[in-house]
Amino acid sequence: MEKQLNVVPFVSVDRMMRLVHSVGIERFLTELAGYIEEDFRRWQSFDKTPRIASHSVDGVIELMPTSDGTLYGFKYVNGHPKNTREGLQTVTAFGLLSHVSTGYPVLLSEMTMLTALRTAAMSAVAGKYLAPKGARTMAVIGNGAQSEFQALAFKALLGVDRLRLYDIDPAASRKCAGNLARQGFASIEICDAAAEAVEGAAIITTATADKQYATILTDNMVGPGVHINAVGGDCPGKTEIHRDILLRSDIFVEFPPQTRIEGEIQQLPEDHAVTELWDVIEGHAIGRRDERQITLFDSVGFAIEDFSALRYVYDLTVGGAALEFLDLIADPDDPRDLFGMLMRSPAAPAAH
Amino acid sequence: MEKQLNVVPFVSVDRMMRLVHSVGIERFLTELAGYIEEDFRRWQSFDKTPRIASHSVDGVIELMPTSDGTLYGFKYVNGHPKNTREGLQTVTAFGLLSHVSTGYPVLLSEMTMLTALRTAAMSAVAGKYLAPKGARTMAVIGNGAQSEFQALAFKALLGVDRLRLYDIDPAASRKCAGNLARQGFASIEICDAAAEAVEGAAIITTATADKQYATILTDNMVGPGVHINAVGGDCPGKTEIHRDILLRSDIFVEFPPQTRIEGEIQQLPEDHAVTELWDVIEGHAIGRRDERQITLFDSVGFAIEDFSALRYVYDLTVGGAALEFLDLIADPDDPRDLFGMLMRSPAAPAAH
Repeated sequence: MEKQLNVVPFVSVDRMMRLVHSVGIERFLTELAGYIEEDFRRWQSFDKTPRIASHSVDGVIELMPTSDGTLYGFKYVNGHPKNTREGLQTVTAFGLLSHVSTGYPVLLSEMTMLTALRTAAMSAVAGKYLAPKGARTMAVIGNGAQSEFQALAFKALLGVDRLRLYDIDPAASRKCAGNLARQGFASIEICDAAAEAVEGAAIITTATADKQYATILTDNMVGPGVHINAVGGDCPGKTEIHRDILLRSDIFVEFPPQTRIEGEIQQLPEDHAVTELWDVIEGHAIGRRDERQITLFDSVGFAIEDFSALRYVYDLTVGGAALEFLDLIADPDDPRDLFGMLMRSPAAPAAH
Repeated sequence: MEKQLNVVPFVSVDRMMRLVHSVGIERFLTELAGYIEEDFRRWQSFDKTPRIASHSVDGVIELMPTSDGTLYGFKYVNGHPKNTREGLQTVTAFGLLSHVSTGYPVLLSEMTMLTALRTAAMSAVAGKYLAPKGARTMAVIGNGAQSEFQALAFKALLGVDRLRLYDIDPAASRKCAGNLARQGFASIEICDAAAEAVEGAAIITTATADKQYATILTDNMVGPGVHINAVGGDCPGKTEIHRDILLRSDIFVEFPPQTRIEGEIQQLPEDHAVTELWDVIEGHAIGRRDERQITLFDSVGFAIEDFSALRYVYDLTVGGAALEFLDLIADPDDPRDLFGMLMRSPAAPAAH
């Protein structure tokens, strides 16, 4: 791997898209979910810290580092809801994986696409443990950039094949339905209201983008037995679910210190009981225990999921001739002679 | 600048070296020092946080973010003293600059070379305010990767033109002297002991790399009036200067919450008085006040210096046709249609 010390394998956006298609998107989501589950099972071996956020009027820029002692990974990600008005993405991201033993990077990757995939894979992993058995119908409220990925992840991992879409902007729903038209769903229905979308849905996914305390779901819209996959409430001041629903639900989270600040549960007292998802996956805690229970996955996205995603992409691409390489790491012949490397570079002025 | 939203201007190692040579290394150090001073003058407008460190047996990997409200910058940097034994760099780094208003990156740059330059420029800025006036002789103890950059920065900014070198490995001193032989110094002497190197030196720079509590300077080696530029003690468990010298010195630091953990002053009680360098530069505090005072710059390296360095490189390269560009940011035509971008990419399977 490290024949050329100065170069870092790089997965560009174009390369990532080729990678997804070469694997197949549903298989990609399924295998990625497998990496996430594997890492959640060894939760206690990770360095965990809430992401480091730099908030501004328009949005947030975050760094999300973690390490399992062998590999170190971090993601740079922004969240700027107003960006779409300027033709920009709300969320863009890239990430890096490096060796803990040397600090040398082994992979730099785009992560806008990869984050969309891992967020959906994570939701589907939670759904596997929390959604009612045999659930086939999912309401998707908020039909923006994340919606199709959610739909396909739940199809691939849980067999969900009926979608009920709603967005305040009907064009977003039409885009979502159009994109998913040939992806093997039994039915895709565009609804006129959130209340209509949730009818008959065993799973409700909320993935709206506005940065505000919104109420996408009101109390009367959520009946017994439903699993709520709350994706959009993911930073301070941004929630989607009415507090009364939270109080009726069993709430599952990724990393409590982060979710209490960023998730739906920022609406609740700090000591409100929640269950850590890794405890469910590892068998320390029960996920769904009966048919009438309302379960809620308060997704905010945690560094370990990005680590899993980078690890998956690394395993897919390692040694791959198709990778690009970046001249990112200075590698003098004598490590103590960085200056000599600079002065002997082709661009240096001739000796006088 | 943002005609192509998906690409991020990239400064590779090779490009950085060309940039340094096209400007000229001493002018580069001087201009970089100017950017650092400018940013230290507006210290209070920055988001400041101690770096986020992931420590392991072999070293540390750190993220160093900061923002002035308009631009956001961070650096990834490792420190692995044992790396040199495997032919790797102790410190490698890269960094990113982005717009706070959109979260979109505007520059990705190698920073191994740039960190060496900014560390030296920072030391010289401190030296400008703290070293005795007219100092021409500097002892450099520890002649590894940082040594030549320190020497040239003090030459460019302060007029230091006599060097006294010492390293436990004589080969390192010979490398340093050789590299600097044609850089316009009046004299460069290789010494057999640290105590010999400091003789007649108005400035003592310590830049050793071992991760341990070392005593590069003992109390009897430091006479009145000297300025100590303590560069190597920069992480928990790694110091260079005997505690007694610290107690006789007026100590100047970058960002106290970080320096108290990482700098020489980790040897002192938490409430030991130190002066923030930005207060000196801004005129709120006095730097050197008399000829017999021992001043000590307890350099650990702070995120704002990396920000200044990235800002300088950005200004040098902005709009430059010579830049490389990375396909790092997914940019769908409709920002809400990331999935459509994926499915319409050339690599996607043909519609069926």
